[in-house]
Amino acid sequence: MGGGTGTFVVLSGLKQHTVDLGVIVNMMDSGGSTGRLRVQLGVLPPGDIRQCFVALSEAPDLWRRLFLYRFESGDLEGHNFGNIFLSALEKVSKNYDEVLETAGFVLKTKGKVLPVTHEKTHLCVEYDNGIIIKGEASIDENLHEESRIKSAFLDPEVAAYPSAISRILESDVIVIGPGDVYTSIIPLFLVNGMKEALQNTKAKLVYVVNLMTKSGQTFRYTANDHVKDIEKYIGRPLDTIIMHNGIIDKNIIEWYASHNEHKVVDDMESDKRVVRVDIADNTIIESDKADKISAYARSILRHHSVRLADAIMTLL
Amino acid sequence: MGGGTGTFVVLSGLKQHTVDLGVIVNMMDSGGSTGRLRVQLGVLPPGDIRQCFVALSEAPDLWRRLFLYRFESGDLEGHNFGNIFLSALEKVSKNYDEVLETAGFVLKTKGKVLPVTHEKTHLCVEYDNGIIIKGEASIDENLHEESRIKSAFLDPEVAAYPSAISRILESDVIVIGPGDVYTSIIPLFLVNGMKEALQNTKAKLVYVVNLMTKSGQTFRYTANDHVKDIEKYIGRPLDTIIMHNGIIDKNIIEWYASHNEHKVVDDMESDKRVVRVDIADNTIIESDKADKISAYARSILRHHSVRLADAIMTLL
Repeated sequence: MGGGTGTFVVLSGLKQHTVDLGVIVNMMDSGGSTGRLRVQLGVLPPGDIRQCFVALSEAPDLWRRLFLYRFESGDLEGHNFGNIFLSALEKVSKNYDEVLETAGFVLKTKGKVLPVTHEKTHLCVEYDNGIIIKGEASIDENLHEESRIKSAFLDPEVAAYPSAISRILESDVIVIGPGDVYTSIIPLFLVNGMKEALQNTKAKLVYVVNLMTKSGQTFRYTANDHVKDIEKYIGRPLDTIIMHNGIIDKNIIEWYASHNEHKVVDDMESDKRVVRVDIADNTIIESDKADKISAYARSILRHHSVRLADAIMTLL
Repeated sequence: MGGGTGTFVVLSGLKQHTVDLGVIVNMMDSGGSTGRLRVQLGVLPPGDIRQCFVALSEAPDLWRRLFLYRFESGDLEGHNFGNIFLSALEKVSKNYDEVLETAGFVLKTKGKVLPVTHEKTHLCVEYDNGIIIKGEASIDENLHEESRIKSAFLDPEVAAYPSAISRILESDVIVIGPGDVYTSIIPLFLVNGMKEALQNTKAKLVYVVNLMTKSGQTFRYTANDHVKDIEKYIGRPLDTIIMHNGIIDKNIIEWYASHNEHKVVDDMESDKRVVRVDIADNTIIESDKADKISAYARSILRHHSVRLADAIMTLL
């Protein structure tokens, strides 16, 4: 369960294993190309869905490159081809199921991509200092906020996609994250029906803790702060907590420090649910040149897809 | 051979017959969505190519609708999904052959779509009054010009796509048009190597005469004026000339008259090459609402695809 880059990483890794994969995707993104397409065309946010389709794709490399291609100039500048594809497809399809089926067919997707909802909504958060912000992109851009988030809610309330609910009830293991706690993960639990499904499933709930804190939403969060917030919105304890225990490159640490973001401190001590493995990918990833639209920088540190997937597979 | 709406019509009709179809496509369009993509992204003009792929497509209806879908608002307003697809594909492909193969595969194209050239160029025309205009779109918009076109040329000169040349040499029948004489048809003959191929082929050359004159390029042209101009640029006589001899709806005639365009007068008399059939489609076609970009109206009268194809098939 997730939506952003972290989900792309975990899906890319798990795809290499013999598992029946499904991903439940955040549908609240409001930034960049996705945000503009939402507003201008009235479509559901395509960005996270597209990333999941590509991550699970077994189509030739040309297709994967096409769907990730971002236009660098002109009217289409900053728009991603995959986002445009999903938006046009939504316009000509009779319903969103037809969009999902068609995209899955074209990209030869291994597994199921399940939007958490088919309804349009926005994430809102209220900070301890009383400030309320609406829209994922605005929350992502609220980098100087040092107050903690008191509560998160959706406006309007929306119902879960029934296939997402049944997938949760039928699963053996549910992997939550890695991803931005408030702008990628928690919105999933706010959709009506999701919390109950997660409470009722027999699946093992696995949470992958982030490597770094994030300004505006997990400022100065320890590992335990992450876990407590996730559990608060699900309303039940997690079963397994995967944490990185290797090094993180000094240059990467410095880059984050200049953005007031830091390595997540492991204060989980002897909590029996914690699995500690070396799962950071210290290769420095250049941020997408053409993504001038979004004011916030993308993550430059990611989990290592193969090692993370291996760690998850040992839990099955 | 052609490119615009007329070619879409003739291909849609011929596709229903058991023939080995190929289409050689004009690559000089510079107007609307296509023109903007050319300039902004540096790609080959996608519009005519896309129409041919869709005309020959045997993919499910959803795919055809997707590729013809035109965005009606926002950054993408006026852009056609198929044009965006071909442009992005050109950006991620190693060469234009890969673009053609991929588009043909996705759209399950029956037959071959062959761009007349893989090089970038613009059509130029010089009128009798000495005025020179560069660019198909500018010529299309030069509606008040009553002077005749003295000569047409390409700037820069470009070489034909070798597969287009061999296709001409191997064909039994070559259908030219229907289409705008100067902005859809003649540019094909200006590409280096095309004229010689058309002179050397054993194929029967069939020309489908337009139903109406067109301001700025075939103003007050009779049927014989059309034929003479086509033959001038090929450098050899046509073998068969297909003309409409039925009625044209009075309302359509009036619409064209208000644009200073008229029914093409049949002055071919007893020319033995002429085949006269009832091949106009008098259904009034609404012009594309979202195509606000192009200053000129689209054709509202078209040939009837089934009857035109039947007439062509009797020549085989």
